[in-house]
Amino acid sequence: MMVTVTLNTALDLTYRVPALTPHATHRVTQVIERPGGKGINVARVLAALGHETVVTGFAGGPTGEVLRSRLADLPLTDALVPTAGPTRRTVAVVDTASGDTTQLNEPGPTITPAEWATLTGRYADLLTGAEAVALCGSLPPGIHVGAYAELIRMARAAGVPVLLDTGGEPLRRGIAARPDLVKPNADELAGLTGSREPRRATHDARRRGAHAVVSSLGPEGLLAATPEGEWRAAPPSPVKGNPTGAGDSAVAGLLSGLADALPWPDRLARAVALSAATVLSPVAGEFDRAAYEDLLPRVTVTERPAAA
Amino acid sequence: MMVTVTLNTALDLTYRVPALTPHATHRVTQVIERPGGKGINVARVLAALGHETVVTGFAGGPTGEVLRSRLADLPLTDALVPTAGPTRRTVAVVDTASGDTTQLNEPGPTITPAEWATLTGRYADLLTGAEAVALCGSLPPGIHVGAYAELIRMARAAGVPVLLDTGGEPLRRGIAARPDLVKPNADELAGLTGSREPRRATHDARRRGAHAVVSSLGPEGLLAATPEGEWRAAPPSPVKGNPTGAGDSAVAGLLSGLADALPWPDRLARAVALSAATVLSPVAGEFDRAAYEDLLPRVTVTERPAAA
Repeated sequence: MMVTVTLNTALDLTYRVPALTPHATHRVTQVIERPGGKGINVARVLAALGHETVVTGFAGGPTGEVLRSRLADLPLTDALVPTAGPTRRTVAVVDTASGDTTQLNEPGPTITPAEWATLTGRYADLLTGAEAVALCGSLPPGIHVGAYAELIRMARAAGVPVLLDTGGEPLRRGIAARPDLVKPNADELAGLTGSREPRRATHDARRRGAHAVVSSLGPEGLLAATPEGEWRAAPPSPVKGNPTGAGDSAVAGLLSGLADALPWPDRLARAVALSAATVLSPVAGEFDRAAYEDLLPRVTVTERPAAA
Repeated sequence: MMVTVTLNTALDLTYRVPALTPHATHRVTQVIERPGGKGINVARVLAALGHETVVTGFAGGPTGEVLRSRLADLPLTDALVPTAGPTRRTVAVVDTASGDTTQLNEPGPTITPAEWATLTGRYADLLTGAEAVALCGSLPPGIHVGAYAELIRMARAAGVPVLLDTGGEPLRRGIAARPDLVKPNADELAGLTGSREPRRATHDARRRGAHAVVSSLGPEGLLAATPEGEWRAAPPSPVKGNPTGAGDSAVAGLLSGLADALPWPDRLARAVALSAATVLSPVAGEFDRAAYEDLLPRVTVTERPAAA
């Protein structure tokens, strides 16, 4: 069983408009409503890959009810903890002409100490049967900045491999608790290390406590620094499309490869192929299965000599 | 009793962001959720002026439930008809720095013929005790374009004064059914008559069937063409602020003045003062009562000679 944790779940709305013009009035031509938050996106991909998957985190209010009713349609187990505050919405405004997206993210409800205690209890129970756990996304208001560090220590005490995908101070604190894997993008890595040179920053992130670091290079693939070696994985050619959820698909690929006990190069190939197949999908955040199967054997994984 | 009809109610969301930048990601710093749709805004102002007010129209789905639970906090009677489709949302993105607003309006649920039949039955019952009725806003999908004309004929048959505030083809069809009053803004008037010259366009609109036409001149006030004469009403000086709901407050002022059997100049003064006090209010769509009472005696109403 795989577990994903999404402390700041969201009801994701996608609005299509001909073109977004600041300070004008727009008629939205299409509305799509989906359960969201990074860990839920990761869980959706894990389930599509055939893994038994449980989602936990928080959901509350009318938006939380809609989120949970939509989750019930997916092959996932819902172990979300109810909150008094309503689940946030995110709005992605897509210009029909260009495909460019403008994102508006609500902050999320304030989590009470009692709700956090319920979550850690639920999480401890889930760790008992977990093959691996992913901790994903931003922290909602009210949760202490060391929350991910706490969840990482619990996973490590239970002997469950733990992946962290977040940014800012929660990443900095989390990494010091020695997660098995972190998957920062360029901005998160620069925020953590002060460097925009991917290899240097990836090594620096590893030195801060993560056993392995897999950095996203955007359309150019992934860069991994692990105890077993260092690799770069790239799609056969950069793909164009909607990058929403591409990072979450990469996380699902890494976690899936870990659960299947694949060697690192195969885990990275799976992550890159899933990520590219998500960019190519006509539906934001879904992956195109045919594209995934086509891309998987064509991902190039290059071993690099260890850094000095 | 006053009745307002909102066929396309909305859950109005206001998002504050430092500044809206197309194709960027924004953290929303404040979220306000209010029951919306023009007729509901009008009803809120009528109730604040002390009128017993009933709202009807449609509401459905989780967004409709939130809307109705918020309505329950206001001194209004909820006579909305449930729909299978969910009530739409509107999102107003306010730049904190400039105060400028970018508006995103969902289209609304498709109304079924059975839902429309329930609405017309509910409306017929409400007309029995109504002093006046306001028909406000856009038509949701599924409703025939002559819907307002049908509701106007029913009001006239019941001897209830009826005000229409809409645009486009629903205005064109509605006006031919001889409503007591229409309140177009400059764009609606231009769409109806082809003219952007306010006086000419107002007269043209009256010739098309409305007993009286009160055209909005934006911050410069109102222009009225009625069987009793023609007036222009203006605030003491143009006010600056958030114009959201200013037109709805003007409608409430006109309807309130009609119910109180005020002469036209006093109705227009009430409408202009309410409208300006709405622009001045720190909360979008609310009016500032102190500003209203200060402005009311200072609105200038000028009688104009009848057009040739």
